[in-house]
Amino acid sequence: MTLSITHLGPPGTYAEQAAVFYVNWLTKSTGFEATLSPYPTISQSLHAVADGKAHLAVVPVENSIEGSVTTTLDTLWQLDSLRIQLALVLPIVHTLISCASSLDKIKTVYSHPQALAQCQGWLERFLPTVQIIPSNSTTEALQRLEQETTTAAIASSRAAQLYNLPILASGINDYPENCTRFWVVSQGEADAGYRASTIDASHTSLAFSMPANTPGALLRPLQIFAQLGINLSRIESRPTKRSLGEYLFFMDLEADVKEAQMQSALAELTMHTEILKILGAYNILPISAVT
Amino acid sequence: MTLSITHLGPPGTYAEQAAVFYVNWLTKSTGFEATLSPYPTISQSLHAVADGKAHLAVVPVENSIEGSVTTTLDTLWQLDSLRIQLALVLPIVHTLISCASSLDKIKTVYSHPQALAQCQGWLERFLPTVQIIPSNSTTEALQRLEQETTTAAIASSRAAQLYNLPILASGINDYPENCTRFWVVSQGEADAGYRASTIDASHTSLAFSMPANTPGALLRPLQIFAQLGINLSRIESRPTKRSLGEYLFFMDLEADVKEAQMQSALAELTMHTEILKILGAYNILPISAVT
Repeated sequence: MTLSITHLGPPGTYAEQAAVFYVNWLTKSTGFEATLSPYPTISQSLHAVADGKAHLAVVPVENSIEGSVTTTLDTLWQLDSLRIQLALVLPIVHTLISCASSLDKIKTVYSHPQALAQCQGWLERFLPTVQIIPSNSTTEALQRLEQETTTAAIASSRAAQLYNLPILASGINDYPENCTRFWVVSQGEADAGYRASTIDASHTSLAFSMPANTPGALLRPLQIFAQLGINLSRIESRPTKRSLGEYLFFMDLEADVKEAQMQSALAELTMHTEILKILGAYNILPISAVT
Repeated sequence: MTLSITHLGPPGTYAEQAAVFYVNWLTKSTGFEATLSPYPTISQSLHAVADGKAHLAVVPVENSIEGSVTTTLDTLWQLDSLRIQLALVLPIVHTLISCASSLDKIKTVYSHPQALAQCQGWLERFLPTVQIIPSNSTTEALQRLEQETTTAAIASSRAAQLYNLPILASGINDYPENCTRFWVVSQGEADAGYRASTIDASHTSLAFSMPANTPGALLRPLQIFAQLGINLSRIESRPTKRSLGEYLFFMDLEADVKEAQMQSALAELTMHTEILKILGAYNILPISAVT
């Protein structure tokens, strides 16, 4: 069987790098083959799976420096049919790609806003006078570099190879411990074939809204999980988009949704929430080497 | 006395609109006069105040649709000397500005990523084939519109007036209840002259980090405030930038930092946090009419 997998494009993005790693792992462990389809936005790559045009999407959720990828959270909240199957953690090493003969020839630097923010200190130090221009992905501006020799882009070394472009500086991210967590997302319930193992999932992610104007409402959900000994590894708030000051909460919990403790917690949680969505139960696969 | 106030530029941004409102209010209530200084990034507008180059910065904190402005939170965490003096809530009405004779002539739309995200549905419906290009502010691209008649930008109607450019469509934000909360920030402790009133502040904002690897650590801070009857109106997590899975928490609480309850809560909170910063105590001034 050949699976189709969507990701943020054009080719060479970190999302594609995570997807390539996932495909290699999947082929080795299950014999599945896969083709990759780049989409211009993360939202479109998720919608393609919800609409049945692809089997899986590999989407960034969170970077260790710049935080949540909010478009991923908001789109998963909207699209009821999607479930997280696996998490991947990719170390991020940014490079400055340009056909300029040296740094002092560069007048413009393009990249995704997250990548620009992750290299802000380096840019201020080494390219203090350049114009910084955000783009829709790290690779969107690469095609113009051959024509525009005073232009540079921030992307991965793998992207430089793919587009056959020179690297002027490597490891330019301000914080060395830079990594991004991705989710592999499919339609409907878990298909064990897509996953890291058939053993229990290590994490469950969920999201919920609460009845409007309930002061101190967040305390109860946290208490429910704490009392049952379930550790909360992450909490993120997002606006409900109804009115300023109303939030959804996204939680990552260190337990399989199938465990009895978790089932008790969820049963109690439904009594305190307005809408509760289980986004999926999954394991985490670290990506140690660049493939 | 003339105060200098920084904001995200070029002129015509929503931050400038909030700053203009604030200056009008300030002049009426205190007799202070003020000059506005646009900066190319939010971070730079805050650094100018921390470095003593300006008295106040007006910075966006949170939009009701797109959520936190993370660069504001991260910069306030870094710059110890800044304190919030006042919050302003500005209704956001986006317009499509272009010299094109009609919508079907438009090939490219520029705006700040938050504004693009807030008009995503409208763009997909009315301009499904255009190229969407993020810019550093809503007004950055306005100067090119007179030359480039197939280009449009999303900004406020006030920006269209300032640059003397035509509006092709108004109220194009996907959600009508779109507003942005701004903070007015100065160096050091409160100066009553900058504030909405000398009465008690309605809100206190703080941020804290916690000792690494303390499961369930967030529960205790929430319990402390709940037990003392202090309502939490917002919680936001941000990465510590040390390693994936370690977070700072930003909280807005509905009490003045000077109240006895709040002082008790803070005394207990310091025992459970690693670094605790009080970002300021302030009132909220709604901006009802566009000035």
